[in-house]
Amino acid sequence: MNDELKNQMTRLGRAVRDAQRTLGSSSHESRQSALRAAAEAIRARRSELLEANDLDVDAARARGRSDAFLDRLRLDEDRIEAMSAGLEAIADRPDPLGVVDQSWARNDGLAFERVRVPLGVIAVIFESRPNVAADAAGLAVKSGNGAILRGGSESAKSVEVILDAVTEGLRSAGLPLAAVEAVPTQDREAVGHLLEMTEFIDLLIPRGGRSLVERVQGESRVPVLGHLMGINHTFVHAEADLDMGVRVVVNAKMRRPGICGATETVLVDRPVAPEYLPGLVAALREAGCRIRADEAARAIVPDLERATAADWDTEWLDAVIGVRVVDGIDGALRHIASHGTGHTEAIITEGAEAAERFLSEVDAAIVLHNASTQFADGGEFGFGAEIGIATGRIHARGPVGAEHLTSYKYRVRGTGHTRP
Amino acid sequence: MNDELKNQMTRLGRAVRDAQRTLGSSSHESRQSALRAAAEAIRARRSELLEANDLDVDAARARGRSDAFLDRLRLDEDRIEAMSAGLEAIADRPDPLGVVDQSWARNDGLAFERVRVPLGVIAVIFESRPNVAADAAGLAVKSGNGAILRGGSESAKSVEVILDAVTEGLRSAGLPLAAVEAVPTQDREAVGHLLEMTEFIDLLIPRGGRSLVERVQGESRVPVLGHLMGINHTFVHAEADLDMGVRVVVNAKMRRPGICGATETVLVDRPVAPEYLPGLVAALREAGCRIRADEAARAIVPDLERATAADWDTEWLDAVIGVRVVDGIDGALRHIASHGTGHTEAIITEGAEAAERFLSEVDAAIVLHNASTQFADGGEFGFGAEIGIATGRIHARGPVGAEHLTSYKYRVRGTGHTRP
Repeated sequence: MNDELKNQMTRLGRAVRDAQRTLGSSSHESRQSALRAAAEAIRARRSELLEANDLDVDAARARGRSDAFLDRLRLDEDRIEAMSAGLEAIADRPDPLGVVDQSWARNDGLAFERVRVPLGVIAVIFESRPNVAADAAGLAVKSGNGAILRGGSESAKSVEVILDAVTEGLRSAGLPLAAVEAVPTQDREAVGHLLEMTEFIDLLIPRGGRSLVERVQGESRVPVLGHLMGINHTFVHAEADLDMGVRVVVNAKMRRPGICGATETVLVDRPVAPEYLPGLVAALREAGCRIRADEAARAIVPDLERATAADWDTEWLDAVIGVRVVDGIDGALRHIASHGTGHTEAIITEGAEAAERFLSEVDAAIVLHNASTQFADGGEFGFGAEIGIATGRIHARGPVGAEHLTSYKYRVRGTGHTRP
Repeated sequence: MNDELKNQMTRLGRAVRDAQRTLGSSSHESRQSALRAAAEAIRARRSELLEANDLDVDAARARGRSDAFLDRLRLDEDRIEAMSAGLEAIADRPDPLGVVDQSWARNDGLAFERVRVPLGVIAVIFESRPNVAADAAGLAVKSGNGAILRGGSESAKSVEVILDAVTEGLRSAGLPLAAVEAVPTQDREAVGHLLEMTEFIDLLIPRGGRSLVERVQGESRVPVLGHLMGINHTFVHAEADLDMGVRVVVNAKMRRPGICGATETVLVDRPVAPEYLPGLVAALREAGCRIRADEAARAIVPDLERATAADWDTEWLDAVIGVRVVDGIDGALRHIASHGTGHTEAIITEGAEAAERFLSEVDAAIVLHNASTQFADGGEFGFGAEIGIATGRIHARGPVGAEHLTSYKYRVRGTGHTRP
């Protein structure tokens, strides 16, 4: 037990908690102004940020990190501009605070309304992507929440420059600088403190790989919003437009195979498998995708690699897709109930009845009809940005934007009402 | 570690989880019919329930339980009828499931809607009040959630009869009986299992005293919805109608001093204290209320008992009230920020500006203007019943009714949309 670290974390928590009270009652104009100034400050620090990022990337490479890791860590002009544009998109959205989302009155005149308020203080624990710092800070400021950010050590120099820019944005708008803070040490024990700081943190969001999320969900005393895996399916139904089925599945897997909304298994309705599969296989192969198929699919396209039982529970996050032939919508629903992770599921069909049944019965954050699972993204949903996609059912589900980082309170107006 | 108990709890969890899938996709008509049949079944078992309750009360008395405890435990004809009427009120409310609470479309035609779905399985841990079993079961059935109930050992015989009636309701509606189950043992270790069963339980609601809620919040791996304390204030502002101020404060404390929505401290604006306090003191005393006052109040009404610093952080739940003189709305806001528990706060004033500032700046689940804090109740809010009042800001806040025991999913409809 490191007392000095504990005191440091307590001071941090108290400072953000105090600053949040001011931020939470600030005008939307000042929060927008802070976000726009932060976007400009990031642009103004482009060279400084690229230099800091070069140091981060060099150090990570020297530590033997994978190419995929280095790619997530690396910033370039386009990615920096995307960060600034993201903050501006967040600024442009309507104010999530003060919205009256329900109101009613009783016969005796007592009038109720439910109004959105900030959650409080959010802690975000993330790994290598520096842009998470900008998104998380931006969504927190927008929704009047304090934020405590803890990035991986490999992105520390990049994140420092980004948070300097956010601080400049807060300053220029006259908002409290301590509303967004980074954990000031890379000591691993600091994360343990975050998981225990129920007095100062209202919600914890782990943003990273499975082992991070599992650790946080397993150990945290603070409520957690996160997602473990996106084992997503696209079901090509007997009544599908099969050309659409090829186009959508190739996009759902191959547009970006490594994102959590990628389709990992395509389920094919038995009656159309002979007609559909050869075209799908050709298109996937042309796009550079490996295919792991069940016996029924291999009976149709013999040179496919054989799938193992474990494949149906694997999140490839890579140019690999499973193919399985199922018996109708019931077979698809059964497979999804057994192997899905409640993230994103899609059906391709021209049959209205099948579509509505799938949309209604599949238990997942996002269920799509005739569209690519790659739309599972807060930006695509119109939320401006997202801090992640929640697969639990408590508080928020699906893409988490600024409006989901709010709570509510009831305002009740009477004229001297007493309760009988 | 008791393996047999663990297996028993796992079987229970799996049975409720499976039954919930059917309940969650059942029609509103069948859920309503189950609730109405359960209400009738409770009425039909009135004598049986009174006998079981007599045994519970006798055993609790023999164990030396307090009169207040015995009163919470005791059922009579009126309380039994109130349970049945509560189930019918829940049945009469609109279906909380399938409600489309947001919908929008993009320029490219991709259409989004957000629709309410059940949370899953809810576990309710409660103490002596048998009616909690009826309310919890009713709200769970209404919202398509499975429920695992764990009552205190003292109410076991009463709760068994109530749950028999609920089971009869489910059976008569053709719904799965295992959707609502009691923990089949009074072994204390069973509660420990409930707190760990993240695979089978989505939300845990402790309903009882502070030590129960603190234990559950401190140890649970399952998300918890609960409230610790209701240290609620009524602020009588300088521009108050002082007669209204007396009427409302007496009601807010003395209508039922032991409920969580009772006012525990009255804050009096300094300019009106000399005129207001003598009348308030007389009315409270006539109603049988003890008063603990600060020095400024005692300077006005000299024979008042002196308050200690600890009083401002005490939830009396009894015929005792604290009285403190404060300096204007700023003084009231400061006192509430320091001593309030985020439950329910009220202002009495004819001044529109002061009222709006109080409603906006006080951070509590419920903030009232010119009304008694005793309205902090799901029934009074029109929710039919409540399973408790949440003072946290995650998921639900304030009175928790059937609609708050839901989550949502996104349904997205395209025409072959792929993501660029």
